[in-house]
Amino acid sequence: MAREHAYLSGLVGTGVTPSLTPPLHMAEGRAQGLQYVYRPIDLTALELDLQDLRLVLNWAEMLGFDALNITHPCKRDVIQFLDDVDPVAKALGAVNTVLLTAEGRIGYNTDTTGFERAFRTGLSGAATDRVVMLGAGGAGSAVGDALLRLGVAHLTIIDLDRERADEVATNLTGRHSAAVQSGGFDDLEKALANSDGIVQCTPIGMHNHPGTPFDVALLRPEHWVADIVYRPLETELLRAARAKGCRTMHGGLMAVAQAADTFQLVTGRDPDLERMQAHFQSLVDDDEVNPERYQ
Amino acid sequence: MAREHAYLSGLVGTGVTPSLTPPLHMAEGRAQGLQYVYRPIDLTALELDLQDLRLVLNWAEMLGFDALNITHPCKRDVIQFLDDVDPVAKALGAVNTVLLTAEGRIGYNTDTTGFERAFRTGLSGAATDRVVMLGAGGAGSAVGDALLRLGVAHLTIIDLDRERADEVATNLTGRHSAAVQSGGFDDLEKALANSDGIVQCTPIGMHNHPGTPFDVALLRPEHWVADIVYRPLETELLRAARAKGCRTMHGGLMAVAQAADTFQLVTGRDPDLERMQAHFQSLVDDDEVNPERYQ
Repeated sequence: MAREHAYLSGLVGTGVTPSLTPPLHMAEGRAQGLQYVYRPIDLTALELDLQDLRLVLNWAEMLGFDALNITHPCKRDVIQFLDDVDPVAKALGAVNTVLLTAEGRIGYNTDTTGFERAFRTGLSGAATDRVVMLGAGGAGSAVGDALLRLGVAHLTIIDLDRERADEVATNLTGRHSAAVQSGGFDDLEKALANSDGIVQCTPIGMHNHPGTPFDVALLRPEHWVADIVYRPLETELLRAARAKGCRTMHGGLMAVAQAADTFQLVTGRDPDLERMQAHFQSLVDDDEVNPERYQ
Repeated sequence: MAREHAYLSGLVGTGVTPSLTPPLHMAEGRAQGLQYVYRPIDLTALELDLQDLRLVLNWAEMLGFDALNITHPCKRDVIQFLDDVDPVAKALGAVNTVLLTAEGRIGYNTDTTGFERAFRTGLSGAATDRVVMLGAGGAGSAVGDALLRLGVAHLTIIDLDRERADEVATNLTGRHSAAVQSGGFDDLEKALANSDGIVQCTPIGMHNHPGTPFDVALLRPEHWVADIVYRPLETELLRAARAKGCRTMHGGLMAVAQAADTFQLVTGRDPDLERMQAHFQSLVDDDEVNPERYQ
């Protein structure tokens, strides 16, 4: 009997117990005929903190984990414990996937590659000359990098925290030949007036942050609108955009594409993105029937 | 989509990397349509020792393991870290299976239940009035208890270390109504002369301990002979016994039955013992082609 490899992954971060990523990976593993177990490693539930991250990595490695997804608040701190970091992740200063290999621990960032994959799938052919991005946090940094790899020529980064927007713009300008500007919400109206599309990377629109990040009267039918929020999949912003006739992409696609990229790194196998989207949708549907999962 | 539970187990002990138990569990899990990953946690390879056992348990629990098999040299020491121990395991003072449940850590001993299951399968109907057992180490203790549960009325325990044989006999006498005697190898000829069967629980006959533990001229065709050594499955003792016309049972059956009992504890599902035997045989065949797995 040939011994097939069985895969073991985990998700490290605070409050990750209800994450859909573990069942999403396992469902794709099962669909591909793999033995694949994926565990949430919830620092909150375990009463661990960022100081314990080194131990979590050491023990996950010793107990046979193949890989870890890393999420808030560990994406930057984890880097010091790695042997090698993929150039894109290194430039972003954030790692969300660690492969624990016989040759060492290698860090990747599938948030950024995931957004890129999602965009090519969900907004293929969309104009990318001028794009506005709202939110310059960790997600914004990863998405901004992806946008420039996707060929965006003029990117305007808007954040309530102007300094943070400046920093991300400076970092991106240093690595890409595109024109990257930063601004505050005062600059939004003008930026939107001549942009092709907008990417929403703030928490506004999540279940616990309802609303829209700006006045939707500024949207025009020619805009495409991508939201990275996926709880709910239909945010107020996307609903308003669709009502205007805009092309839209919800945050579920990035969540799935990110998981797909990690799945490929872990298993070496091509994931089936459509099948993973269907799994994701059914997990979301199930969760909406069981909202207590979230709190 | 219903979220099925995915199972994660480990085997803790020194030198367990080449153990057949992990692939044996995973093959049965796969055959039952379960997601089941089972990892060796080799204290030797990890440069950990008995002092680290508490940490291994803590971290396995935190990282989402459902269960651990425990083997040499940890079967006694692990008990201090458990919340509850099954009565048979407690009486033996040895635990080889720990369930990590929401209600706490519970210890079991499937070495003893496994031998019992193996005997009922492989030597069903064999006479059990008088039995001789060779070897009073950890395996002997577990097998001795199983023999008395199987109805053996007179058990003679032989060990090079008379004191160890005395201790096991005293322990068993305290818990069973059978007559249990101890002796040295000088007593073997007489004990065998009027016994129904013999169980071999010393390391003699293993790949690295070739030979037989006593002069096979003492065997008679009426004896049944069980060996708990399973590397190789056919020991010199069993070969000689079969040549005499004795009924025999090799150590693979106990190894499989032990794994079956643990599988049942972990998953709550009935394992298919025949299928597990077939898996085991194919793993052994594969290993015999790849002997470097052992060293």
